[in-house]
Amino acid sequence: MSNKAMDPWFAFGLGVGSKNAQGAWLEVFFPAPQIGGDLPSSHVAAEHDALAKLLGYSGGNQVIEVTAEQLKTLPLAAKTYQPFVDSSRPVVAVFLASDVAPESVPEAYLKLHLLSHRLVQPHGQNLTGIFKVLPNVAWTNLGAIDPAELPAAQLKARLSGAPLTVRMVDKFPQMIDYVVPSGIRIADGARVRLGAYVGSGTTVMQEGFINFNAGTEGPNMIEGRVSSSVWVGAGSDLGGGCSTMGILSGGNSTPISIGKNCLLGANSGLGIPLGDDCTVESGLYLTAASKVRLVARDGSDGRTVKARELAGRSGLLFRRNSLNGALECLPIKGSIELNADLHDHN
Amino acid sequence: MSNKAMDPWFAFGLGVGSKNAQGAWLEVFFPAPQIGGDLPSSHVAAEHDALAKLLGYSGGNQVIEVTAEQLKTLPLAAKTYQPFVDSSRPVVAVFLASDVAPESVPEAYLKLHLLSHRLVQPHGQNLTGIFKVLPNVAWTNLGAIDPAELPAAQLKARLSGAPLTVRMVDKFPQMIDYVVPSGIRIADGARVRLGAYVGSGTTVMQEGFINFNAGTEGPNMIEGRVSSSVWVGAGSDLGGGCSTMGILSGGNSTPISIGKNCLLGANSGLGIPLGDDCTVESGLYLTAASKVRLVARDGSDGRTVKARELAGRSGLLFRRNSLNGALECLPIKGSIELNADLHDHN
Amino acid sequence: MSNKAMDPWFAFGLGVGSKNAQGAWLEVFFPAPQIGGDLPSSHVAAEHDALAKLLGYSGGNQVIEVTAEQLKTLPLAAKTYQPFVDSSRPVVAVFLASDVAPESVPEAYLKLHLLSHRLVQPHGQNLTGIFKVLPNVAWTNLGAIDPAELPAAQLKARLSGAPLTVRMVDKFPQMIDYVVPSGIRIADGARVRLGAYVGSGTTVMQEGFINFNAGTEGPNMIEGRVSSSVWVGAGSDLGGGCSTMGILSGGNSTPISIGKNCLLGANSGLGIPLGDDCTVESGLYLTAASKVRLVARDGSDGRTVKARELAGRSGLLFRRNSLNGALECLPIKGSIELNADLHDHN
Repeated sequence: MSNKAMDPWFAFGLGVGSKNAQGAWLEVFFPAPQIGGDLPSSHVAAEHDALAKLLGYSGGNQVIEVTAEQLKTLPLAAKTYQPFVDSSRPVVAVFLASDVAPESVPEAYLKLHLLSHRLVQPHGQNLTGIFKVLPNVAWTNLGAIDPAELPAAQLKARLSGAPLTVRMVDKFPQMIDYVVPSGIRIADGARVRLGAYVGSGTTVMQEGFINFNAGTEGPNMIEGRVSSSVWVGAGSDLGGGCSTMGILSGGNSTPISIGKNCLLGANSGLGIPLGDDCTVESGLYLTAASKVRLVARDGSDGRTVKARELAGRSGLLFRRNSLNGALECLPIKGSIELNADLHDHN
Repeated sequence: MSNKAMDPWFAFGLGVGSKNAQGAWLEVFFPAPQIGGDLPSSHVAAEHDALAKLLGYSGGNQVIEVTAEQLKTLPLAAKTYQPFVDSSRPVVAVFLASDVAPESVPEAYLKLHLLSHRLVQPHGQNLTGIFKVLPNVAWTNLGAIDPAELPAAQLKARLSGAPLTVRMVDKFPQMIDYVVPSGIRIADGARVRLGAYVGSGTTVMQEGFINFNAGTEGPNMIEGRVSSSVWVGAGSDLGGGCSTMGILSGGNSTPISIGKNCLLGANSGLGIPLGDDCTVESGLYLTAASKVRLVARDGSDGRTVKARELAGRSGLLFRRNSLNGALECLPIKGSIELNADLHDHN
Repeated sequence: MSNKAMDPWFAFGLGVGSKNAQGAWLEVFFPAPQIGGDLPSSHVAAEHDALAKLLGYSGGNQVIEVTAEQLKTLPLAAKTYQPFVDSSRPVVAVFLASDVAPESVPEAYLKLHLLSHRLVQPHGQNLTGIFKVLPNVAWTNLGAIDPAELPAAQLKARLSGAPLTVRMVDKFPQMIDYVVPSGIRIADGARVRLGAYVGSGTTVMQEGFINFNAGTEGPNMIEGRVSSSVWVGAGSDLGGGCSTMGILSGGNSTPISIGKNCLLGANSGLGIPLGDDCTVESGLYLTAASKVRLVARDGSDGRTVKARELAGRSGLLFRRNSLNGALECLPIKGSIELNADLHDHN
C-alpha cells in the first residue's frame, strides 16, 4: 500500500446504504462527506488517512465495502464514524483521488452529497454519465426498494395490513432525506433533488423546485423552477411557477445563470443568463430567440435585438407592452428587496 | 384568581405537541380549538371555565403547561378532553383573552388552527410577527424534529435500517396533518399549509395551493395558487397553475380577493381584486399596472385604463387580443358553472 | 351456476382492501388485474374459471367478498393468488362480464387498475359516474381512513406519540402506491393518480401530472399537466408547467390529444388536439378560440383562422410574434428529439 492518503485527493466519504436482492447498490447515505484539495484541513486529512489504512486503500478512485470486522475498529480510525460500528446495513467507503466521471452508485451518490453539503458548486465536478450509473429506485416508507422487487413487497404489505407507501420512483432521491443544510426552508421535500446546492437563507416554497447540479447562492426566495445546471445569485427571487431553461430539457447548451437581486415574476420564463438587478415581468417568457425592442429611459424606442444579445447584462427590465404586444427591454435603477420577514428567520 | 373565564375572551384550546431536546416547543396540535366572543355558547364557555379553574388561569393571555397530576383530573373538568388523560406527550393549554400578536409557539399554533377549523376568517385575527415566533421544523415520519437534531437522528435511523423520511423543513406544517375540515378534497397534502381556510366543497388539485391566512369560501375548484392573504369567493374556479399575488411576495399591500363565480384560466395570473362573474383568460397575467383597453359589447374600442382602476368590478372578461397583442377588457354576461361532478361528491 | 366463465368477459381481479368502521369499502388493491375479451389467454381464462367456481360466480357483473374459509382453498384455484391465503385484510373478487358504468368501490378500483396496468387505454372503458362511486378517503401512513374517523385517529396518534401523517384526502389515490408499471420514473408520487396510463419510457418530473383516464404512449418527458382525458403520443415532450385542457375542468367536450414528437414549451397551454411534430412555444397559451395568423415559409402572412380549425394538423409551430403580439402558426420540418440521457435509462 502506497501512502496515497498523503497526496492531494478530491473527496471521500463513509456511507451506509441499500442493496437489492442481487446485492447491487440502490443508494448510499454519506453523513459527513469530505472534500480534499491540495491543502485539506489536518482534521479531515487525518480521517482520510486513518480510513485508508484500515480499509487497505491503495490509491486512485476506489469503492471499498466495509466488513463487520472492520466496522469494529472504525472508532479507532476516525471518531466521526463511531456510530457506524453497530450498523445493521451495508457500509461502504469511497475514496476519490481524482474527479473523473462516476462509475458506480457509491461514487455517484458521494458526488451528489458534495453538492448538497455545499462542498462543491454546480458544474464544479465531473458528473458525466450519472444518469446511466444511477439505478431507478422506488422510495418507500420502508426505504429504497428495487422496482423489480416492489410488486411482491406491495402485496405482502397489503395482506398484512402494514401499509407500504411509495413516495416516488426515480434515480434521484429527495435531498432532505439525506441532508438538510443550515439556514434553509423547503416546504415540500419532493421538490428538491439530492445534488441540489441550496444556499443558506434559501426558502423553497411548495411551487419551487431545484434540480441536481443546480442551486442558489442564498438568500433566495424560490417559488419557481431551478432547472438542471441553473445558478441563482444572492438576493434573487423566483416567482411562483416561473421557469428557467435547463441544459437537459431545453436544448440550449449554455447554462442559465441569474445574477444578484433579480426578480423573475410569477409564471414567467427565462432562456438567457441574466446579470444583476434584472426583472422579468410576471407571465412573460423570454427565450433566447425572442426579438426584443429596446426602450430608452425617455420612453423612445431604440433598435430591436434578439434576447440572447442581452445575455448577462445587468439592470434590465423585460416586459410585454400590454397595448401593442411588443416585448420590451428597459433600463431600471435599484434592485428588488426580498421581504425580510420571509428570509430572516430560517 | 379572578373569575376571568366569565369575561368575554378571544379563544382557547388544549393541545398536545412536540419539543426539542432543550424543551422548546416545536409545534402543538389542538384537536378542538374554541373561539369565544361576547356570547360564546354555554357549552364552550363551561369548558373554558372548567379548564381555567383546573389550571390556575389568572386572566389575560396565558400559555399553561399541564402536569401529569393535572391531566388525571381533566375529564372532570371537561369531557371533551378526556383522551388527554393518558397522554405520553407534552400537553399545553392556551387561553387568549384578547387578540394580540402571538408571542409563543402554542399561541401561534392555536391561531393557525382557528383558521383551518373555520373559526376565524383570513385577516380576522392578529398574526403580526408569526414568522418570528414559529420555529423551523423538520417534519418526519417520526414526528417533528428540530433541524439541529436531525443529522444525528438521520444517521441513527440509517444504521438501524428503520428509515427516517423527511417530508419538509418549514415553519408551517401541512394542514391535513392537523385538521381535515368537512367537505373538502386535497389531492396533495403538501400544498395546503396549516392556517389555510378551506371552505366546504373545496377541491384542491395537485397543482393547487393555499397559503396560511388565505382561503376559499367554498365550493371552489382550486388548481392554482391561493397566495398569502388571498380570498376566493363561492363558485370561483382557479385554473391549473394560475397565480394570485400575495402580500408577502408580491410587493402589493392590498390583499387580492376574488368574488363569486369567477374563473382564472390555466396559467393565468391576477394582481388586482376581482368582483363577481369575472374571467381572466388562460395564460394571461393581469398585473395592477397593466394598461387595459376597454372594449364595448359592440366590439368598438373605448378608453385605456390601468388594471387597478378596474379592481373589484364585476362581470368582466380579461383577454389578450391574439392578433394585435393588446390586453382587453370586455363586459360578459352570466357566470361560469363549475362541473357538478367535481363538486357534488366531497 | 352457469358456466359463464367460458363466455367472453371484460375483466376480473382479486383484491385486498380497506373498509371503514361501518364496513363500507374505502379502496381495493388488485395486484394482478386481468382483461378478458373474446379470446383471453388460456392461462388467464383458467384463473378466471377457477376463481369463478370457487366463489360461486353466477354470471354478469358481480362483486364477491371472499371468506376466510374460501381463502384457504385459493392456491388450488389459482396459483397467482397464493399469497392471499394468509390475508389479514378484507379480500374481494370482481367479475365483470361486460363493461358498464361501475356501481361499487371494488368495480371502480378494478377499472382504475386496468388503466394503470396498461390493460385498457384512456377512453377504452365505461367510467360513467365514477366520481359518485368513489368515496373520499384520507390516505395516511397507517393506510386508508374514512375522513369521518380521522379526527379520533389523529388525536389518539398524537397522544401516544406515534405520528399519523395524512398525505392527501381525495377520491383517487396515488398510482404508485398501487402499481409501478415497467420502464417509468415518477419524481413525485402525488402527481400521478391511479387510473393514469403511463407508457413505458415515460418520465414524470416533479412538475408533471397525469390524471386518471389520461396518459402517455411512451417514451415521453412529462414536466407539465396531462389533464383528464388527454393522450400524449410517443416522443412528445411536455415542458415544465405546461397545461392541457381536460374535459372535466376545461369546458370543452372533445378530448385533447397530442401526436408523436410534439413539444409543448414550458408554461405553455393547449386547448386543441395536435397532430405529429408540432411545437407550441414556451409561454404561449393556445385556446380553441384563439385567432391565429398563418405564416408561410417565405415569411409572408396568410389568412387568419381560429385555432380549432387547425386541430389535429401535423408539422405546425405556434408562437407569439414578440414584436407585434400576434399569434402565428408556421409550418416546421423535422421533429424534436428528446434528450437520450433522460429517456434511455428507466
